[in-house]
Amino acid sequence: MKRIMLRVEYDGTNFEGYQVQLEKRTVQLTIEKALKKMHHEQVRIHSSGRTDSKVHALDQVIHFDTTLDLDEATWKHALTTLLPLDIKVKAAQVVDGYFHARKDAKRKTYRYIVLNRKDHDLFRRNFEWHVPQTLSLEKIKEAAKNIIGTHDFTAFAASKSNVKGGKVRTIYDFKVMSDGERIYFEITGNGFLTHMVRIIVGTLIEIGLGKREISCIQKAFETLDRRVLGLTAPGHGLYLKQVSYE
Amino acid sequence: MKRIMLRVEYDGTNFEGYQVQLEKRTVQLTIEKALKKMHHEQVRIHSSGRTDSKVHALDQVIHFDTTLDLDEATWKHALTTLLPLDIKVKAAQVVDGYFHARKDAKRKTYRYIVLNRKDHDLFRRNFEWHVPQTLSLEKIKEAAKNIIGTHDFTAFAASKSNVKGGKVRTIYDFKVMSDGERIYFEITGNGFLTHMVRIIVGTLIEIGLGKREISCIQKAFETLDRRVLGLTAPGHGLYLKQVSYE
Repeated sequence: MKRIMLRVEYDGTNFEGYQVQLEKRTVQLTIEKALKKMHHEQVRIHSSGRTDSKVHALDQVIHFDTTLDLDEATWKHALTTLLPLDIKVKAAQVVDGYFHARKDAKRKTYRYIVLNRKDHDLFRRNFEWHVPQTLSLEKIKEAAKNIIGTHDFTAFAASKSNVKGGKVRTIYDFKVMSDGERIYFEITGNGFLTHMVRIIVGTLIEIGLGKREISCIQKAFETLDRRVLGLTAPGHGLYLKQVSYE
Repeated sequence: MKRIMLRVEYDGTNFEGYQVQLEKRTVQLTIEKALKKMHHEQVRIHSSGRTDSKVHALDQVIHFDTTLDLDEATWKHALTTLLPLDIKVKAAQVVDGYFHARKDAKRKTYRYIVLNRKDHDLFRRNFEWHVPQTLSLEKIKEAAKNIIGTHDFTAFAASKSNVKGGKVRTIYDFKVMSDGERIYFEITGNGFLTHMVRIIVGTLIEIGLGKREISCIQKAFETLDRRVLGLTAPGHGLYLKQVSYE
């Protein structure tokens, strides 16, 4: 028995999220189907974490155990052939049998893209959130600084979130960049609650629009009240960019 | 009665071409449905020409007649609201009652994008043709020069093509540019036969791969034989870029 780690990229547009749900096309189901064709039996995969419906991944990490004895290039090639065009295996690697894609993940980086101009971009409509109103980038950047650090993020989690243990997470870095039309958010932390990045981005956008004050972030850390924050930004602007181990 | 000209952009991915076909989602049907909501009766639209299934448009031109008396900004706004996100009205203009989107078109420019590297680009897979093999860009550029000018393009038309009149067309300009990974073809002519751009690109790619000689183009003009040319490049790499009147 060998444990294989895959680094995969996917376009979330036509997936109803990562995790297997009855009769829905999910990333997990699609990869498990391809593995079943190779193994002639069910192979369960484990990811670094779920992604919501429509959310993309530039570098999701998964692992599974196999009795097949293939080299890394053959794993990559075989899965590329068996998978649809919206999932790509970037790399395959034989790892230690104790490696766990979720439990061992030390840091994750997410990217979020907002298009801030009057008209939407037709060809990128599934890959960014279109916010047509005028925004204050300065306020957004200022607010983002308040997210960095170790905080109780209970207020930033979907109410359906049932993460075991506490909701204290550490954000190591949070960059906000703009090229004039698009705002790129890049956030790195030791873990993220369900919808956490989307609620952070939705709140910063509302701050940029003047609908909320920067102080709402501090208030959310103190009151743990979801209602002091902004909307949950749509999934299609979000990318899981990197998962780090070591 | 007023005649309205629209300039529209569309992502062809989820359309089965332009022209209305029974029970299929086409660009024409989608726009006519939106107009029907405004007029409470069928409004027939006319385009500068059809586009095939999966082909995109950056600037398709259509016209229709209406009894509604709306200003240009209102037309644009109303249609933007009624149309799905994969069609966008870029501009609406009241034109002379004699204007005809197809008959008056003097020049058209098409763009074709080829991705020439080992791995496909997941996020652009519906917007470019992935050719992984090594190509000779010099041969492609040399071959492209042979297309420019006035020729009988019979061999470059789909066999099902039933264009009325002759198949002599003039190509004014044909640029081939590369950024190292992507090859951009831009071709301008006074008219194009069914599949003509796709057969030209497919043939140039086969020339770049060393599968065909540059001389096959001259031979096609002389013999009018489709079989001396290369494959029809897939529709999803093609964009109708501009239609000129004047």
